[in-house]
Amino acid sequence: MAGGSGTRFWPASRRHLPKQLLALATETPLLRMTFERLGNLAPVNRVWVVTTVETAQASRNILPELPPGNILSEPMGRNTAACAGLAAQAIQKVDPEGVCIVLPADHVIGEEKQFRSAMAAGAEFVSREGGLLTFGVRPTRPETGYGYLELGLEHSRKGEWSIHRLRQFVEKPDVEHARTYLDSGGYLWNAGIFAWRATTLLDEIRRQIPDLASGLDRIGEALGTAESDAVLSEVYPSLPAISLDFGIMEGAEQLWTLPVNFPWSDVGSWTALAEGLSGDATANASRGRVQAIDAGNNVLVSTGPVLSVVGIDNLVVVATPDAVLVVPKDQAQRVREVVEGLHDRGWDDVL
Amino acid sequence: MAGGSGTRFWPASRRHLPKQLLALATETPLLRMTFERLGNLAPVNRVWVVTTVETAQASRNILPELPPGNILSEPMGRNTAACAGLAAQAIQKVDPEGVCIVLPADHVIGEEKQFRSAMAAGAEFVSREGGLLTFGVRPTRPETGYGYLELGLEHSRKGEWSIHRLRQFVEKPDVEHARTYLDSGGYLWNAGIFAWRATTLLDEIRRQIPDLASGLDRIGEALGTAESDAVLSEVYPSLPAISLDFGIMEGAEQLWTLPVNFPWSDVGSWTALAEGLSGDATANASRGRVQAIDAGNNVLVSTGPVLSVVGIDNLVVVATPDAVLVVPKDQAQRVREVVEGLHDRGWDDVL
Repeated sequence: MAGGSGTRFWPASRRHLPKQLLALATETPLLRMTFERLGNLAPVNRVWVVTTVETAQASRNILPELPPGNILSEPMGRNTAACAGLAAQAIQKVDPEGVCIVLPADHVIGEEKQFRSAMAAGAEFVSREGGLLTFGVRPTRPETGYGYLELGLEHSRKGEWSIHRLRQFVEKPDVEHARTYLDSGGYLWNAGIFAWRATTLLDEIRRQIPDLASGLDRIGEALGTAESDAVLSEVYPSLPAISLDFGIMEGAEQLWTLPVNFPWSDVGSWTALAEGLSGDATANASRGRVQAIDAGNNVLVSTGPVLSVVGIDNLVVVATPDAVLVVPKDQAQRVREVVEGLHDRGWDDVL
Repeated sequence: MAGGSGTRFWPASRRHLPKQLLALATETPLLRMTFERLGNLAPVNRVWVVTTVETAQASRNILPELPPGNILSEPMGRNTAACAGLAAQAIQKVDPEGVCIVLPADHVIGEEKQFRSAMAAGAEFVSREGGLLTFGVRPTRPETGYGYLELGLEHSRKGEWSIHRLRQFVEKPDVEHARTYLDSGGYLWNAGIFAWRATTLLDEIRRQIPDLASGLDRIGEALGTAESDAVLSEVYPSLPAISLDFGIMEGAEQLWTLPVNFPWSDVGSWTALAEGLSGDATANASRGRVQAIDAGNNVLVSTGPVLSVVGIDNLVVVATPDAVLVVPKDQAQRVREVVEGLHDRGWDDVL
């Protein structure tokens, strides 16, 4: 899933340069890191990227080894249910028994061997048992920025991995609840990483959102033919825009979760980027030509200009040649307001 | 005096674009504002600008009505005694009885009619009585960023203006002393604005710094001849670099001060710019494409990029296409450290 719009990393990210195309955490774009993390989980021709028409070419450039047909371009974003449904159509066409692992293209994950082992276990499970499986990350701190999964009864084990029923999805909690969740051991971070048979997802979509299913069927029939682009352009924009979590998962017949403990971050803000996988940042996190004098605990990013700061703490400062952002770390999520405000002023040239 | 190097307004000012060439306070460069402020005090051909070779052409462009020979270019900065001495040589050559008013080109002054009246009174006084006169600004707040002048006995009055002996120069005080100075009524801000006969200054230089005097004499002989540039290039760099205040004024035989009360600022920092002539800034001072959300009491300047700030207070943020500065308002003078640090890193391309 590589269709994000990148508002939260403005001004480094722009409408046509969303977060997954940026090399935020390392020198490698997040999309490429997500691809390389798969290792030998699947051959290259069994990897699909769902992107937008605006970023399809950039995605191809970042993943030149992918068959061109494996990059699916959404004419416009229709949320994650349509996105995953589109991929399921493409996969079902290649392999009617095909199992999907659904991964956001803009997360950071450590311990990749653990990651691959967990993905393989989840895929093997749904291939055999059916149902929709979501991978949940064991929390390491009372994080209020993530949704949670409440664990149900353990169903089975395979090696080091256990599969549980998923009792319920829990919205982002306040810090008190987050601490309770952490202490109880019965809750996981909802990482937005899933596994299912392509047909299982499409059947659930058909049962719960028939309009989405029939649109996806029309697109599925055209995929790989000369009509593919035309049908996608016509049908996709009319699909209901619903998230996987609330549109499909909450009402699904068989819901599983597989607890994982690899380090994980959705890199949801400049602050999260600085905190990295540990959730803690005590020094300046700097990229580019940055000079910090008597300044600590800041996120200091430049994509070109020389950035000099003196005597400041706990700020995010991002400098690009045509736009600059300054915001306290604990308000980094307000970048959304900034982007809206710039649009309201008609300064869309920097969005 | 238009030879400043402009460190304090980095990154808006650069080595070759010092403060006096910038339109900081209004749409007009400070040098031009200083020139226009003279009004009918002196005809255009009796105005001299001492600048540097690097900024002479820019100064000519800003003051196209000035005779080219009235822009004197220092081959390198040699502090204010040499600068004022150079001007005195040029003026003495045109008029052996000539009186100089010496003005920094990068200050902001209000109530221009009052200003001209005070300048005329000071010039008339030194023309008649001789000596070196410094204009002092009656303090309106316990400012610690300025040097002070201690008033001596009143010597005479003319209209609303009184002339006093100058008892002593006082270095920048701490806030306690500054408050005492303010309350006593016996102290003025040292504004660096002077009046004297050209010959009086040159005589004082001869008496106190003979090396400087002989160098200036050699330059004075050549001024206006074909040898002018060659002699200036050869002799000027070897002149002692001493300030007017400490090199000449403190040891002068006859020292006067004329208290003025026009609004004045030396615009010594980004913070002073925001405070303007009142010495107070409670809202954001913004220039350029700036968006401030829940942010107050900041200085927000952009010479090009869109600058967006959220949730910050009491900061200076200056954005240019190739350099960005963030510093608390009460540490704005530390721009010097920034510039030194950039030089140390070899990032001179942005200095």
